Amino acid sequence: MSSSENDAVLDWNDQDAKAVDTVRVLAADAVQKSGNGHPGTAMSLAPLAYLLFNKVLKHDPTDPNWTGRDRFVLSAGHSSLTLYIQLFLSGYPLTLEDLKSLRQWGSQTPGHPEHGHTPGVETTTGPLGQGVGNAVGMAMAARRERGLFDPDAPAGQSPFDHNIWAIAGDGDIEEGISGEASSIAGTQQLGNLTLIYDDNKISIEDDTNIALTEDVAARYEAYGWHVQKLDFTAGGEYHEDVHALWDALQAAKAETGRPSFIQLRTIIGWPAPNLQGTGKAHGAALGVDEVKATKEILGFDPEKTFEVPQGAFDRAREVVARGHAKHEAWNAEFEKWAEANPERKALFDRMATRSLPEGWTDKLPTFPADAKGIATRKASGDTLSAIAPALPELWGGSADLAESNLTTPKGEPSFLPPDRQTKMFSGGPYGRVLHFGIREHAMGSILNGIALHGGTRPYGGTFLVFSDYMRPAVRLAALMKLPTIYVWTHDSIGLGEDGPTHQPIEHLTALRAIPGLDVVRPADANETVVAWKQALEHTDRPTALALSRQNLPTFDRTTGEYAPVEYAAKGAYVLAEASGGTPHVILLATGSEVAIADEARKRLEAEGTPTRLVSVPCFEWFEEQDEAYRESVLPRSVKARVSVEAGIAMSWRGLVGEAGESISIEHFGASAPYTVLYEQFGFTPDRVVAAAHASL
Amino acid sequence: MSSSENDAVLDWNDQDAKAVDTVRVLAADAVQKSGNGHPGTAMSLAPLAYLLFNKVLKHDPTDPNWTGRDRFVLSAGHSSLTLYIQLFLSGYPLTLEDLKSLRQWGSQTPGHPEHGHTPGVETTTGPLGQGVGNAVGMAMAARRERGLFDPDAPAGQSPFDHNIWAIAGDGDIEEGISGEASSIAGTQQLGNLTLIYDDNKISIEDDTNIALTEDVAARYEAYGWHVQKLDFTAGGEYHEDVHALWDALQAAKAETGRPSFIQLRTIIGWPAPNLQGTGKAHGAALGVDEVKATKEILGFDPEKTFEVPQGAFDRAREVVARGHAKHEAWNAEFEKWAEANPERKALFDRMATRSLPEGWTDKLPTFPADAKGIATRKASGDTLSAIAPALPELWGGSADLAESNLTTPKGEPSFLPPDRQTKMFSGGPYGRVLHFGIREHAMGSILNGIALHGGTRPYGGTFLVFSDYMRPAVRLAALMKLPTIYVWTHDSIGLGEDGPTHQPIEHLTALRAIPGLDVVRPADANETVVAWKQALEHTDRPTALALSRQNLPTFDRTTGEYAPVEYAAKGAYVLAEASGGTPHVILLATGSEVAIADEARKRLEAEGTPTRLVSVPCFEWFEEQDEAYRESVLPRSVKARVSVEAGIAMSWRGLVGEAGESISIEHFGASAPYTVLYEQFGFTPDRVVAAAHASL
Repeated sequence: MSSSENDAVLDWNDQDAKAVDTVRVLAADAVQKSGNGHPGTAMSLAPLAYLLFNKVLKHDPTDPNWTGRDRFVLSAGHSSLTLYIQLFLSGYPLTLEDLKSLRQWGSQTPGHPEHGHTPGVETTTGPLGQGVGNAVGMAMAARRERGLFDPDAPAGQSPFDHNIWAIAGDGDIEEGISGEASSIAGTQQLGNLTLIYDDNKISIEDDTNIALTEDVAARYEAYGWHVQKLDFTAGGEYHEDVHALWDALQAAKAETGRPSFIQLRTIIGWPAPNLQGTGKAHGAALGVDEVKATKEILGFDPEKTFEVPQGAFDRAREVVARGHAKHEAWNAEFEKWAEANPERKALFDRMATRSLPEGWTDKLPTFPADAKGIATRKASGDTLSAIAPALPELWGGSADLAESNLTTPKGEPSFLPPDRQTKMFSGGPYGRVLHFGIREHAMGSILNGIALHGGTRPYGGTFLVFSDYMRPAVRLAALMKLPTIYVWTHDSIGLGEDGPTHQPIEHLTALRAIPGLDVVRPADANETVVAWKQALEHTDRPTALALSRQNLPTFDRTTGEYAPVEYAAKGAYVLAEASGGTPHVILLATGSEVAIADEARKRLEAEGTPTRLVSVPCFEWFEEQDEAYRESVLPRSVKARVSVEAGIAMSWRGLVGEAGESISIEHFGASAPYTVLYEQFGFTPDRVVAAAHASL
Repeated sequence: MSSSENDAVLDWNDQDAKAVDTVRVLAADAVQKSGNGHPGTAMSLAPLAYLLFNKVLKHDPTDPNWTGRDRFVLSAGHSSLTLYIQLFLSGYPLTLEDLKSLRQWGSQTPGHPEHGHTPGVETTTGPLGQGVGNAVGMAMAARRERGLFDPDAPAGQSPFDHNIWAIAGDGDIEEGISGEASSIAGTQQLGNLTLIYDDNKISIEDDTNIALTEDVAARYEAYGWHVQKLDFTAGGEYHEDVHALWDALQAAKAETGRPSFIQLRTIIGWPAPNLQGTGKAHGAALGVDEVKATKEILGFDPEKTFEVPQGAFDRAREVVARGHAKHEAWNAEFEKWAEANPERKALFDRMATRSLPEGWTDKLPTFPADAKGIATRKASGDTLSAIAPALPELWGGSADLAESNLTTPKGEPSFLPPDRQTKMFSGGPYGRVLHFGIREHAMGSILNGIALHGGTRPYGGTFLVFSDYMRPAVRLAALMKLPTIYVWTHDSIGLGEDGPTHQPIEHLTALRAIPGLDVVRPADANETVVAWKQALEHTDRPTALALSRQNLPTFDRTTGEYAPVEYAAKGAYVLAEASGGTPHVILLATGSEVAIADEARKRLEAEGTPTRLVSVPCFEWFEEQDEAYRESVLPRSVKARVSVEAGIAMSWRGLVGEAGESISIEHFGASAPYTVLYEQFGFTPDRVVAAAHASL
């Protein structure tokens, strides 16, 4: 048995081959039992998956969360059995019984791999292309973490050195997000990343010649990747050359200056006699007869199901001992490192639990009252600059809008290889400011990959309207409960002259619709600080910050007229109380419209109508409050309510009620200075007053 | 003056050069006057834009809608001046005054080009990458239309032969959607398409070396495009070699077997002395001094603004005469074609107005009552098959889910070049079934391009959950009021085993949030037919069909118990009336939940509660009804209401009111058979009955 990490020769025997065939049989059986699923790729990728989990990956099946482990990403998530069967064979806490309950209620083996649900699943995949972005994010995070913890160790000599391995199918390759992420990986020279493309030329619409005819390997060369091609069909007869594949994986690992791409030509569903190489093998059970025929070809008893030959099982499980040995060797290195680097070890421990440093909130800025005020994007940028030194785990950047999103903490270096520095952005491979280019979708999936990798806290910025471009990745962050932070600026028609293509109208509502995403739209600079504080203190969910382009007055909270800003953390709060304490009408607003509503409040009060102003920075936080608090802010008895938000009214219906009114915009915007738009589209104190009269 | 379409030599003189410089001066002035905007690219792309509009494009500025025209797409929409200034110089109905009111309220020159707003603007661009997809769609539409109208004409000899020209910037190239669309263009061998990439190595974050280091030209070669490179900086000194550029454009046009890509290296903001080649020239006014300095370099009076030298103006306007001549020559060809092809001419005329053929509704299927029923996706597929022969303008396909979305009309050929045929999909270059591969975003932008090109009616399918992947394109369809149709199947947890990554939860609500998009979720097979009918009859908006994976009972509308299906066109209607005609409670539901609500209705009626069942296939259609109809369906007096929809409740608040209840799902789904999910997540008649009791 060899336990060294860099074996020069593949240790492969007949039991390994039998284990590979066992994978195929289990895949066919599991889908047949479920009645539906994706058997084909799990069958033809069996040699690759087994090689990775048994011979290549640095991992310890008994400790799926080992810091020093390599990461494996199955971007082709529909082939979840590719992962589940390896987890079972390798000795992760996943049993044969689990495989038998594939795709059933409450099982450990859902249709697509779900992170946080099944130990050993590093990310939730299925929506295609996302895993490629996740893997790129993990590779970036690995470099950033090495930079934080062990920057001076020679290459390959740090306990924080490890590799990211990902498998992509035709669909992953077709989706634009993978192209975006792969281009970034090339620029970033991510030598710790290997992507294996299962080139089986079959997708659901069968032969991919109708839709995928490009030279994928040449495209990856164009991205600056190290590219290898391997063709199991090359010899005329199908030959799964595991030795050549192992050599390619080793060469990929050895290439540390560029990410590696391995194009592996396979035949889907191999060796099913009738369905191999067909779209039918992709996404449906093979059928009883075909499963039996496959078993016969592989020398398995066609009458048995879920058969795991003992020899193959034992051989596969040898990886547990090898994993232990590697883990123990790593422990020694890690302890040596910890002793030599007590401060870094303290940071490591803090980041491992995503706890924030004591006293960090002292670094948060306080903005003085100011009628002219500042844009909340500016307050956000100032906040970032203020806390960045205390929170090295916080890093991020923008999809080419750094100057607009104000996502660059002052004086911080960019995360860039030496030859990617520019006049405007210097830094180094361990820097913390990210440059995604105009690739919002990849940004979203990379942020997810970073958050999945470890303790750092990533954020990413673009205009709010372009949250649409990254929406599938945001949804996955919410599904995985990842603490990513979105800095979405220019959050309304306040964007002005760029016009309707750039003005979010439906976005606040559409984002509030995503379960598990906190959408925060602060009313002034100090609410923005609270938004950042809350976002960082929440480690179990993504947070979206919707920030203004235009200046907003900073409320004077020192005189008693306006409530202390800490209440903003409750999601909705009485910013200004009605005269006499009993409102006749309640005005609710968010962000840039709070000041407009406040002006309306003053006019209503002047005319003798006791008017309460409620700022609603975050619906989701407010929903978490107890009934008593909610009732105290929005008493059931006060039916006269007006919401003011420069977006559609849909999400407000619940808060304003049947008697309430909404000042909203139910159509697309226009190109003009924002002051003109606010007036023309009716976001004025006058109209709020009129709506209050209507509601009363 | 040369008016031939295929000039062998560029006719270029000093006044042409002066016109190009005039473009630069106007761009600098317009942004300076506006106070903000994007001058840099309009300045450095002046030679290209002028060459295209003055020497290359087949167009008639006095008839922007001429069928025979080439199409021009400015994917880099932020450089709207690139387009506006050419429209002005070429003689489109856009004046110098319009340029002076750039980015102002009500002007013809909004921040980004808006189709339907400014004559000559072929598509709304700004969200990056979309224009590339639009251009690919236009090129596909041009081929399809040629196939419908003049399939037998030799290449280049039909009045329906024309070319699509598009300009992309760095951002377009970085966005994944352009890669997706370009890959499709390669597979489709779109020889009528030329994409010019303005490789200026500057984006908002300045030098693109931080984020764009790939070899873009090599990537386009990998897609199978014809690739040319031109570098205005090659000689050491910046030299805008218009003759070489013209040669490249001619070579691109001459290449009819592949799409063409021209990588043009420019210096942004050329020749502004201090800001050329900087990020500052990209998205901000140059400043008074820099504008003056630029004018001096170009030999313009620095004290004058918006100066258009008469000689240059006259020279530029010569294109009007050439355009007329081309148009007249084309008219003769067109008339010859019309005479020889009276039936095709009739189809052409019908499609030009997007009117439907007389009697087409006779082809619509009627589904018999059936308790077992069929899935609405199946009803949709059957409807498509039934109407396809009568509606040759209707075409579309799926993002690799044809068998699931049921988007292939029976027996119809695929739209594929000869060497892209497969065993499963045959057809030809003029076929009508589209294969997008797993590229939902490109599909969305291609559908937009097809709709923009002319009279055909495109549709595209994927799973509803993946509407997120194409959302930016859907938004643009709504903004442009394009009659695209989305066939989004597997519209709820009814999708079952594939689990939460594939189950839409928030999507119906998030789509209803988009202004101008009709979201239709039919309750049974016959409502699905009405949905298609309505979608086709609406020519001023996109329609989204949300269709079930699972079988739904087909209501028996012959006995009087259930209303005639025609009412579905009203968006919401009384499907089953309460006993006695006066409801105590109203159940509202859509799609697959209507049958569940109906079962609850029966139970409530059995216990003596008069219960009305309202099917709500489309909120937007219902909102268009008059108040009397709306009141007749949902009388204000009936406060007890229950909505049932397998998604979040947010969009229902307005319809159910404060006393109402919503049976909804406010969290992500799970992997299990759908019957289990419906039970576990509470979409059962029992729970609807309980909610009705609570609401009463």
